[in-house]
Amino acid sequence: MSSPSAPREAATLEPSPQAFRELVMAVVERLEHYLATLAEQPVSATAGAEARAARLAGGPPEEGRPLEQVLAELFDHAIPPSFNAASPGYLAYIPGGGLPHAAIADLLAGVVNRYTGVRPAAPALVEIEAAVLRWLVGVVGYPHDATGLLTSGGSLATWTALVTARRVRLGESARVLRATLYASDQVHHAVTRAAVLVGFPAENVRLVASDADFRLDLAALEAAVAADRAAGYEPFLVTGSAGTTNTGAVDPLAALADFAAREGMWFHVDAAYGGAFALTERGRRALAGMERADSLVLDPHKGLFLPYGTGAVLVRRGEELRRAHEVTADYLPPSGEQEAAFDPHAYGPELSRPWRGLRLWLPLQLVGTAAFAAALDEKLDLAAEIAAELATLAELDLVAAPQLSVLAFAPRLPADLASAWQRHRSNPTLRRDPTARAELAAALAEPNRRTRQLLAAINAPQRVFLTPTRLDERDVVRICVLSFRTHRDRLAMAASDIRSAVSAVLGAAWPDRA
Amino acid sequence: MSSPSAPREAATLEPSPQAFRELVMAVVERLEHYLATLAEQPVSATAGAEARAARLAGGPPEEGRPLEQVLAELFDHAIPPSFNAASPGYLAYIPGGGLPHAAIADLLAGVVNRYTGVRPAAPALVEIEAAVLRWLVGVVGYPHDATGLLTSGGSLATWTALVTARRVRLGESARVLRATLYASDQVHHAVTRAAVLVGFPAENVRLVASDADFRLDLAALEAAVAADRAAGYEPFLVTGSAGTTNTGAVDPLAALADFAAREGMWFHVDAAYGGAFALTERGRRALAGMERADSLVLDPHKGLFLPYGTGAVLVRRGEELRRAHEVTADYLPPSGEQEAAFDPHAYGPELSRPWRGLRLWLPLQLVGTAAFAAALDEKLDLAAEIAAELATLAELDLVAAPQLSVLAFAPRLPADLASAWQRHRSNPTLRRDPTARAELAAALAEPNRRTRQLLAAINAPQRVFLTPTRLDERDVVRICVLSFRTHRDRLAMAASDIRSAVSAVLGAAWPDRA
Repeated sequence: MSSPSAPREAATLEPSPQAFRELVMAVVERLEHYLATLAEQPVSATAGAEARAARLAGGPPEEGRPLEQVLAELFDHAIPPSFNAASPGYLAYIPGGGLPHAAIADLLAGVVNRYTGVRPAAPALVEIEAAVLRWLVGVVGYPHDATGLLTSGGSLATWTALVTARRVRLGESARVLRATLYASDQVHHAVTRAAVLVGFPAENVRLVASDADFRLDLAALEAAVAADRAAGYEPFLVTGSAGTTNTGAVDPLAALADFAAREGMWFHVDAAYGGAFALTERGRRALAGMERADSLVLDPHKGLFLPYGTGAVLVRRGEELRRAHEVTADYLPPSGEQEAAFDPHAYGPELSRPWRGLRLWLPLQLVGTAAFAAALDEKLDLAAEIAAELATLAELDLVAAPQLSVLAFAPRLPADLASAWQRHRSNPTLRRDPTARAELAAALAEPNRRTRQLLAAINAPQRVFLTPTRLDERDVVRICVLSFRTHRDRLAMAASDIRSAVSAVLGAAWPDRA
Repeated sequence: MSSPSAPREAATLEPSPQAFRELVMAVVERLEHYLATLAEQPVSATAGAEARAARLAGGPPEEGRPLEQVLAELFDHAIPPSFNAASPGYLAYIPGGGLPHAAIADLLAGVVNRYTGVRPAAPALVEIEAAVLRWLVGVVGYPHDATGLLTSGGSLATWTALVTARRVRLGESARVLRATLYASDQVHHAVTRAAVLVGFPAENVRLVASDADFRLDLAALEAAVAADRAAGYEPFLVTGSAGTTNTGAVDPLAALADFAAREGMWFHVDAAYGGAFALTERGRRALAGMERADSLVLDPHKGLFLPYGTGAVLVRRGEELRRAHEVTADYLPPSGEQEAAFDPHAYGPELSRPWRGLRLWLPLQLVGTAAFAAALDEKLDLAAEIAAELATLAELDLVAAPQLSVLAFAPRLPADLASAWQRHRSNPTLRRDPTARAELAAALAEPNRRTRQLLAAINAPQRVFLTPTRLDERDVVRICVLSFRTHRDRLAMAASDIRSAVSAVLGAAWPDRA
């Protein structure tokens, strides 16, 4: 029955140190070429990508394939037709760039493969993660007894914050079904989805109006909370965005902190995009009040430039994060006293997990915090500069000036449409009315078509990649300056490509609809 | 106000291609030495680790530090004093080893930093992940319309399975509070914790008795479910373990599938440890019935030998995974028709996320599936062989024979204690009775002390690392053979170190208690 243990699999599953070197060098050679040509690579050319995907759809082979064949498949066929989030021209969504030092940290962590889920298994490696978390606690202005956790990204960080709020304040009880949650209508979808996965009914998430600067409107929030109390709901949690994804808007965080305290509500801050700007003087001013949040999410794979895969949740009273993840039951051994030292499994949902701390720690050690702060200051400058330039173009509206490093613009609307749109924006009743929305959408159909045309023309030279969003039925074009690789030269290309597109698309008469 | 964008940060945050090569080569040199000396490194020497941790507790420097200084800190001080999960002698907990190919995949994924949260951003790279998921679907015997998701580990995979069950069957309703969940008393803590984080009350998790082979006892399950129905609960979900962590026990999966179908309950299988054995003929026989689960968890960082950081959840009716993660609300755009192609954000809780697919795909492509199957067959052989050898030692009880590749043993008990323990194990009422448990624990105190002494003596030479567990108040020593690096020579060392320890600890008269 038992088959003899063949020495063969030892040779194939375990590369010799020499084979390991050859493997890694072949990949490094490809990566060097990738990095050396990055500035010239197209930023968002995905034509033919699904056809290439179809060729990769098969299962793994029974016997191994030659390394060069596999690397050619990846680097020549699979990787190129995708959005190039590593490019300096990537001004889409929320870029970070992806520090190579962090990727090297992942190589190191994977080969040594130590277990960092439970502190006693690797105390010094867990402490490296604890040290970067303490540093983040200081960056956002939290007190020393705050703590946190590195996650795979902002969505799971948000889920961890919300599950903490629920477990600490409501437990598993019917109150969860009466609890209501609030955020502005600009909040990221991750917050709503996290709420539902945590167990709150989707219909209990209230999106209150934002103001002319796309910030949460406090009066609207107060009215919503009062109405819910009157209707028998239990207003439970309010989220303030410290930099929305749409326009980079920063909600009135200090006022929200006051309001939440007055109402006995949990105050969560979504600083996934904006939080790292607290490393700069201007950022700290813009984000004042953030440090009063009960929980806060900040994504190191955004403003700290890591490759995708690292979010962070911080909890003001660190002990609450631990209590939320502690499960007591008759059959479980009693948990000990509060642990003095950080222990990941006790502060989060994971047990086995990757050693995420190193990919943040290593770049910070090798580069130092000053360079991160300087790079973030540079992004604030660059966003302000290109916004100022776009504001001079008569064909465009600067729909959202940068509050941090995101801005949005669109072809200027005819005067009547412009005032209709502003009227709609400033009237919460209209904004909730499906008929009014449909009418506005119909009126904006043609301008929106031109916006998309403009966007396509801007992106066509493949030097920059901008993405659209929709603000009250109006399509706009976003610019998010956040990659550590994006410098003034690339913003000059962006301005030039925008000017060309404006002249080509908006300078012409309204095109035929044939 | 605005500071000029200094070229300096470009130079420090972005290594030149040449600097990138130097950085990666310095790390590779350390890793080569690490791999070349791995077989001789101590397996679990953590003395002084907290003192070293204390030296790493500071925040990052303002200016960067020299690479060699940082690497010396890591490789000479931080990494060595920790459990060496990469070692061939690591027979503790659930090892995997950590394939270096996967670590190289992480380097690659991090540097190219493509976004794989949303399919259109990188169709071919998402398809690479979809392809390994489809392969896993086939490995466990699921139908073609099953799908899944790679997660950071088993805990979040389990949470995803349970949140799917809740969202699809119960939504966010008061039924969640009446729903009861069942598993054997050998189930992994991750299942209980996931249930609570999903929103089920901890007290609604029923741990039913296991039989003499540590498998879930069906009669006990039937009784518990009937009692709960009579008491007004809604029996909702039953978890079968396909290889428990304690002893590797495989629950009667086919019978559980029948039972769940009859009762209209969700059938979840925790195959985090055991699932990969489905690559072998013997494994498929042992795990028969697993393919009837509604959801299933399998950890590639266990039986597929990846470095920590990759779990997998598979859902039998793939569309349910998608529905569970879809959040509909008035203010959200309506979701489209069922998507034909796999799109990670639609099938899981994450939006930004690491490109996990590559770290499983690359080793499979380079090595081929046959070598994985052969390595798993080898583990089954090795576990059977060492169990047979331990069974010949008069001083030991083979408390749990390997059902897959885990076994457990302990010093043989005096006859009266042995029958007391067996009597307790076979009587669910006694097992739940705190007084009976306390009495048994008191009777076993001295044998347990000897077990721990024996374990310390086995681990002392640092050639293997075994860990204990407790089975009905009796401490036992586990052996888990799963690392791809563990071969017959290392099991011979284990047997030799166990024999020496038995002779030193159990051969002597009962030691003084001074």
